[in-house]
Amino acid sequence: MQIYQNPSEKNWPSLLERPPINQNTLLIEVQKIIGLVKIQGDKALRALTLRYDRIRLNDFLVDEKEMRAAVDVVSTDLQKAISIAAANIKKFHAAQVQRVEKIETSRYVHCWRKQVPIEKVGLYIPGGQAPLFSTVLMLGIPALLAGCAEIIICSPPDRQGKINPSILYACNYLGLKKVYKLGGAQAIAAMAYGTSSVPAVYKIFGPGNQYVTLAKQLVQQEGVGIDMPAGPSEVLVLADGTANPDFIAADLLSQAEHGADSQVMLVTTDVNILKEVQKSVQRQLDALPRKKIARKSLRYSKLIVIHDLSMAIRFINLYAPEHLILNLCNPVKIIDAIKNAGSVFIGPYTPEAAGDYASGTNHTLPTNGYARTESGIGVESFMKLITFQQMSRRGLSLLGPCVQTLARAENLYGHSAAVQVRLNKRGRI
Amino acid sequence: MQIYQNPSEKNWPSLLERPPINQNTLLIEVQKIIGLVKIQGDKALRALTLRYDRIRLNDFLVDEKEMRAAVDVVSTDLQKAISIAAANIKKFHAAQVQRVEKIETSRYVHCWRKQVPIEKVGLYIPGGQAPLFSTVLMLGIPALLAGCAEIIICSPPDRQGKINPSILYACNYLGLKKVYKLGGAQAIAAMAYGTSSVPAVYKIFGPGNQYVTLAKQLVQQEGVGIDMPAGPSEVLVLADGTANPDFIAADLLSQAEHGADSQVMLVTTDVNILKEVQKSVQRQLDALPRKKIARKSLRYSKLIVIHDLSMAIRFINLYAPEHLILNLCNPVKIIDAIKNAGSVFIGPYTPEAAGDYASGTNHTLPTNGYARTESGIGVESFMKLITFQQMSRRGLSLLGPCVQTLARAENLYGHSAAVQVRLNKRGRI
Repeated sequence: MQIYQNPSEKNWPSLLERPPINQNTLLIEVQKIIGLVKIQGDKALRALTLRYDRIRLNDFLVDEKEMRAAVDVVSTDLQKAISIAAANIKKFHAAQVQRVEKIETSRYVHCWRKQVPIEKVGLYIPGGQAPLFSTVLMLGIPALLAGCAEIIICSPPDRQGKINPSILYACNYLGLKKVYKLGGAQAIAAMAYGTSSVPAVYKIFGPGNQYVTLAKQLVQQEGVGIDMPAGPSEVLVLADGTANPDFIAADLLSQAEHGADSQVMLVTTDVNILKEVQKSVQRQLDALPRKKIARKSLRYSKLIVIHDLSMAIRFINLYAPEHLILNLCNPVKIIDAIKNAGSVFIGPYTPEAAGDYASGTNHTLPTNGYARTESGIGVESFMKLITFQQMSRRGLSLLGPCVQTLARAENLYGHSAAVQVRLNKRGRI
Repeated sequence: MQIYQNPSEKNWPSLLERPPINQNTLLIEVQKIIGLVKIQGDKALRALTLRYDRIRLNDFLVDEKEMRAAVDVVSTDLQKAISIAAANIKKFHAAQVQRVEKIETSRYVHCWRKQVPIEKVGLYIPGGQAPLFSTVLMLGIPALLAGCAEIIICSPPDRQGKINPSILYACNYLGLKKVYKLGGAQAIAAMAYGTSSVPAVYKIFGPGNQYVTLAKQLVQQEGVGIDMPAGPSEVLVLADGTANPDFIAADLLSQAEHGADSQVMLVTTDVNILKEVQKSVQRQLDALPRKKIARKSLRYSKLIVIHDLSMAIRFINLYAPEHLILNLCNPVKIIDAIKNAGSVFIGPYTPEAAGDYASGTNHTLPTNGYARTESGIGVESFMKLITFQQMSRRGLSLLGPCVQTLARAENLYGHSAAVQVRLNKRGRI
């Protein structure tokens, strides 16, 4: 852990920096994978799955039997926890569906916007070391609430050609039946362009490794929608002297265990808390199964003392953390000062883990400073707004001359003529 | 104009295709411009403005005197039209600001999302042949309603080093004072990275030529937000036998006059209307000052007969037009069947021109098929949603075990520990 005490503002830029992500080394490989899938379809998927996942698969779609088998394997405890989390996520996201509000902007001129589901979406669920069934809930529930007509899921098969049962259980629980045993860049390419067995989708969601992330960026350049640019996960804990060092340490560790590249930061107004936190981290670290990963991530973690709270907040807003934990005596007081963050956890009894899994908020959030401009995933991520307007003949007769003046001032006389031809129409208004 | 009568579905893909946009030829040039601005700042801006805009400028910021001079030049007619349009745009966009709704997802667990303005935004307003002051209104008004703390504008200078007075008038009308005489890729680079005279912003909005569009894509790859990928403007008119051919022709022409690459399409259920439209287009074309441009665009326009209305709608949804005009006997009946479009104009007396300028809706819309996944610009484009959550100790004691079960099932024991350390805390709940 790296300690900084009241760093001067001119040194802030280096503290605010994220590690550079060098994806160029993979570019040629990922381009090649995408090109193969685009041209050869399923044939390429079989070859690439054999090569990267080390398993020979003929069919990618998970069948009914496999689905049922997964349900039998998942413990009732986990089943119950999934149903509680799903209910909370559903409750929180259902409130995000917007009502249509028609506005008469001008007499007889009615305008409105309507949320319309994206017809076809694809969800990528990583496999590997952690079976992220929680991401099935976080993407699947808003997609269902949005009303997307086609929702497909890709998740990499293991060496036995299986997808982790808890992932399948979550899919089945939500009623998502189109689950494909596909991982990596080949899964992204399959969803982007479609093959005989995998339907093409309009927008692709979900986290993934460097292959997946780069593939998403590449297909985006060809017009396929993606959720957001993904980077390593981040937490910033803001703590004052009243905070419990064990809570802080546990929060830092729960971020650090995600991966060696996890971004872990503590900003505190109280220098005394620092040492306590350091000690507590050491104490708690040993109990973690993923301590090796956590230790690597902690090596680059930053513990920063900034005595002045408003200056600390300014620092945080510049950093724009994905997760921000406010472990303060009076956290509510500063909420309005938070300008840039993905998700904010208020007070000592609101650990990030709650939002990661079960409080109902989405855990797919902007990283790498994107919180300055981007939102986390919500129902609206699975929809777009279409604008509608309707004018009566009288409405056009009233607003038309204004439109014509503006159009002509932009040298667009055809626009003016499209109004005039209607105004010229004889007969009573 | 190209005519297609009831094309079979296997021929649809070629009809749905947009012209390929080959930007690779500009890539090296635009990368070089961006690199120069990034390294040399204002010095590069001066050199590039001399090179591309053919004018030597020392200062880029428009001063008070120039602003005032613009106000004096703009006719009172135009001033009045701008104020009407601005009022309608404001009315329509003000309704887009979301209220915060706190939700108790689980007992003592409160979650909410809050719209927070993007702190710094840059608006690019093209100069050139058409002084797009309307775009100042369409971007400036939602930015102001969102509450962005810093709003800057770049627009290219003419050979006299001036920005078109109507653009300056619109900026001044909205109270936007930071207007820079900068165009092209150099303007985008200046806003992305900042120079001594131009502040860096977090997100860049606005249309532009190929240089501008490519520059926006390149700075986006380095983490700067952009509004949306821009392509040539598009209209699709859907008409039945009741439609007035002159109205249709005028609508097609008002799109065609935008540029030689404008996408103009008519889909009709009635073959008889086609000939009338063709004749009317010829008749009306000659009256247009921009007929040369319109003629070029019309050469590639497509007039398509699809007898079956529901099949016509399916075709339209696959095309996902930026603008869709429903010139039908009963347009309201099919509104819910429209799945993919940027902005829909309902009925014979709702020309696109109204929405382009003054009805209140935004004219910055997804092109090139992006309407399948993207929305047009709204107040939310200038904001992001931050998630907040607050749990009491009792709330955590109730939900915590569920969180722990889920975390452990994903092998994230540190997440579970972050809950446990809090539950272990002694004392009364």
